[in-house]
Amino acid sequence: MIRFDLDLSIDTLRRSPATLQVLLGGLDTAWVRGTEGPDTFSPFDVVGHLIDGEETDWIPRARIILAKGPSLRFEPYDRFRHKSRNTGRSLESLLTEFASLRATNLELLRSWNLTARELDLPGEHPSLGRVTLRQLLAAWVVHDLGHLAQVARVMAKQYVDEVGPWVPFLPVLTDHMVPRS
Amino acid sequence: MIRFDLDLSIDTLRRSPATLQVLLGGLDTAWVRGTEGPDTFSPFDVVGHLIDGEETDWIPRARIILAKGPSLRFEPYDRFRHKSRNTGRSLESLLTEFASLRATNLELLRSWNLTARELDLPGEHPSLGRVTLRQLLAAWVVHDLGHLAQVARVMAKQYVDEVGPWVPFLPVLTDHMVPRS
Repeated sequence: MIRFDLDLSIDTLRRSPATLQVLLGGLDTAWVRGTEGPDTFSPFDVVGHLIDGEETDWIPRARIILAKGPSLRFEPYDRFRHKSRNTGRSLESLLTEFASLRATNLELLRSWNLTARELDLPGEHPSLGRVTLRQLLAAWVVHDLGHLAQVARVMAKQYVDEVGPWVPFLPVLTDHMVPRS
Repeated sequence: MIRFDLDLSIDTLRRSPATLQVLLGGLDTAWVRGTEGPDTFSPFDVVGHLIDGEETDWIPRARIILAKGPSLRFEPYDRFRHKSRNTGRSLESLLTEFASLRATNLELLRSWNLTARELDLPGEHPSLGRVTLRQLLAAWVVHDLGHLAQVARVMAKQYVDEVGPWVPFLPVLTDHMVPRS
């Protein structure tokens, strides 16, 4: 376990666009658009979902906390905003957009020079209730890593019929048989 | 689902060293060495395990199949070879070594110009029994992606105590409560 550290969190968050670029850039469409079943995300969808996070979730929520206004309540994170938003887009353009939004957001986050006292400031999550800015930023890091794990898992599952008897030795193929993220 | 394709498989396999380099290169040791609990792999261990695969598993097994000798039986994959092998090594040196071994192995794989008939050739897995070269190569791809998902998951779990009430919304934190890979 690691205690929250702002520099360490930023160092992890800045890696996500390049990691997804290396993993997915120019990859065959069958792999980019494959899912785990109905209503689950393809790698393409994940990149769109991460863009939504940059535009509507993490930094906007941090601003609500730091504004210390009369309402600290966040907007819900629309998990399907990207579906209509990105129709007709290429993966390459989404990867570029994500990299640009993330870089701008991290520059802003750095510029705030947040103190320990500010990291303790509260916000109100629409369903989870009271959370702190520190928890919001930690959740941003974990959210990235969870979706990176999801991309690798969804890609792996596209080959489930090709590995023959190896399935029980490759647990990633049977993770999330009931989709959870 | 995707049918096995050699070029597509190679295109995925070649991405793994760079993906791990972007995700882990220069990252804080606490994150590189964190695990999911006793007898589970840290990101450092995963890179060591992937090196073991390059040296002792995937290509050596493919060679056994292609040699069509009297015994088609593979050596077991020692899941803990890296533990003693890499004592005192840096993550950077492991990442460089993995990239070099993988590049050499993919060059060799390409040079074989495998036909569909060769991909159907059998080998004997020490516990799974009869497998084909095609299944071996598909398992190589899935094995990479599974361990990439594992690295992201293990990193995410280091922040489990920092996200406060967000845990149920971040399923990666509660994946593999009983370690499976």
